[in-house]
Amino acid sequence: MSFKVESEIHCCGGKLLKLSHDSSKTGTSMNVNVYLPQQFYHKQSDKIPVIYYLSGLSCTPQNVSEKAFWQLQADRFGFAMVFPDTSPRGEDVPGDPANGWDFGLGAGFYVNATQQPYAKNYQMFSYIHDELPTVLDQFFKNPSLDFLDNIAITGHSMGGFGAIAGFLKHYSSKKYKSCSAFAPIVNPSKVPWGEKAFGGYLGSDAAAWEQYDPASLIQKVQNNGTDRILIHQGTSDPFYRDQLKPELLLESVKGTSWEGKIDLELVEGFDHSYFFVSSFVPQHAQFHAKNLGLI
Amino acid sequence: MSFKVESEIHCCGGKLLKLSHDSSKTGTSMNVNVYLPQQFYHKQSDKIPVIYYLSGLSCTPQNVSEKAFWQLQADRFGFAMVFPDTSPRGEDVPGDPANGWDFGLGAGFYVNATQQPYAKNYQMFSYIHDELPTVLDQFFKNPSLDFLDNIAITGHSMGGFGAIAGFLKHYSSKKYKSCSAFAPIVNPSKVPWGEKAFGGYLGSDAAAWEQYDPASLIQKVQNNGTDRILIHQGTSDPFYRDQLKPELLLESVKGTSWEGKIDLELVEGFDHSYFFVSSFVPQHAQFHAKNLGLI
Repeated sequence: MSFKVESEIHCCGGKLLKLSHDSSKTGTSMNVNVYLPQQFYHKQSDKIPVIYYLSGLSCTPQNVSEKAFWQLQADRFGFAMVFPDTSPRGEDVPGDPANGWDFGLGAGFYVNATQQPYAKNYQMFSYIHDELPTVLDQFFKNPSLDFLDNIAITGHSMGGFGAIAGFLKHYSSKKYKSCSAFAPIVNPSKVPWGEKAFGGYLGSDAAAWEQYDPASLIQKVQNNGTDRILIHQGTSDPFYRDQLKPELLLESVKGTSWEGKIDLELVEGFDHSYFFVSSFVPQHAQFHAKNLGLI
Repeated sequence: MSFKVESEIHCCGGKLLKLSHDSSKTGTSMNVNVYLPQQFYHKQSDKIPVIYYLSGLSCTPQNVSEKAFWQLQADRFGFAMVFPDTSPRGEDVPGDPANGWDFGLGAGFYVNATQQPYAKNYQMFSYIHDELPTVLDQFFKNPSLDFLDNIAITGHSMGGFGAIAGFLKHYSSKKYKSCSAFAPIVNPSKVPWGEKAFGGYLGSDAAAWEQYDPASLIQKVQNNGTDRILIHQGTSDPFYRDQLKPELLLESVKGTSWEGKIDLELVEGFDHSYFFVSSFVPQHAQFHAKNLGLI
């Protein structure tokens, strides 16, 4: 259950820790990066909240660590970041039979697979939301770091889907205090990426798909009156209109307690890259910092 | 002489332009990225200075564009950034006979080669300091953008060498208003990377090496009384003690008008990566913004 520290990199005012550990949920070794902010090292805070960032298709924990620049914001507000991997990996882990980059390795879609041969390793929902926070808490054993209670979740593209689905599936227990997303897949049951992933991991049962689809989930939980979900979407994103379709989430909440609670910001000219993500990380950081009680 | 706009990427409050053009100095097509800040697009400034950033060994214009996060600082202070390539490239451009990454392609060392077969293409000093600013000025034809007069130069590793050498070689004409470097090679004549590059590009004549070596150049120009050079160097940089040796620059200025004018900041635990560079970009941005009259 313990972590191996692959490297410990001085960055901004804190450190980026590249970790690996054996996951009981995926049955593989998993990589995860953790950024601890300057407030941790300078003992300027005794309760540092954590934001979990779920990456998009084909990414590893390295892309976001190098290109999104959460570290500056973590230092600004005093939160830690966790950057998990996007799938189990390894010689014995089955990938996409079609050799695509939108299913299998690097494309776990943050669900618990029920279909063979994926069910054995692709237990990403349980890994991300249950195992990882627990084992990080046990590993660091530091009361200043709050991996379990005062936490937020966000993500990009497939990871934006994973963040919103995870937030909503745990809404009744208030596991996550805050949720945002960058160019998320909001209604995977109705777009090609989601259809391929849900079909492969969950089979053909519509009910199984609805258990993870934000556009369905959000209709089943009652907004507490104050929670909002922040979403940024670039208008020049090549996946905006056929894979992401954030407007479908707005449609799904019409007439529900979530109507008017989704802040979808369409940003003119931005694409799907980390140039887009990094441009809006400061706004998302401020949003989460407020919801986590830091400002 | 004109540029082709390969892509135009919305980033932060401005745009990153990926350009290519045919260089008369190198005889090849050259890639260069330019970031124009929000002040340019929102017409908030009628005189935007430019910082030239010279990258290190093996880099292209992409690495710094993606990982150093100058863009946030450019928007903060209102300067543009130019990210040139590190060498000429192409099928006909000779590389390192030993297939190393520290000479030839990606390793032009910002000098004008005099030796064959490199002299034809490796005219990086003239390209960076003369041709590129001139053709950028001609291409943009915009009086708000100052590619020629109110300009600064900085760089990383090999590029830190290139920045300091270029600054000092043009010191009498005050071409660059400001100079800084991240983990620069300060005395290439005395370290393995520099010996290999200078030997290959300039031959064995010691006088030819001294014409580019900051530790020699700085002894031949009179500090104007106010100029300072800002240098950051990580103490855990694996190249610190055998290739970079920033202390050699401090030694070389002892008893000269530059004594006390080199601000060498040794930063504990930092390495040689873009995690290091990006961590200190905000400080360098502030340094240049002040010297460029922005604050």
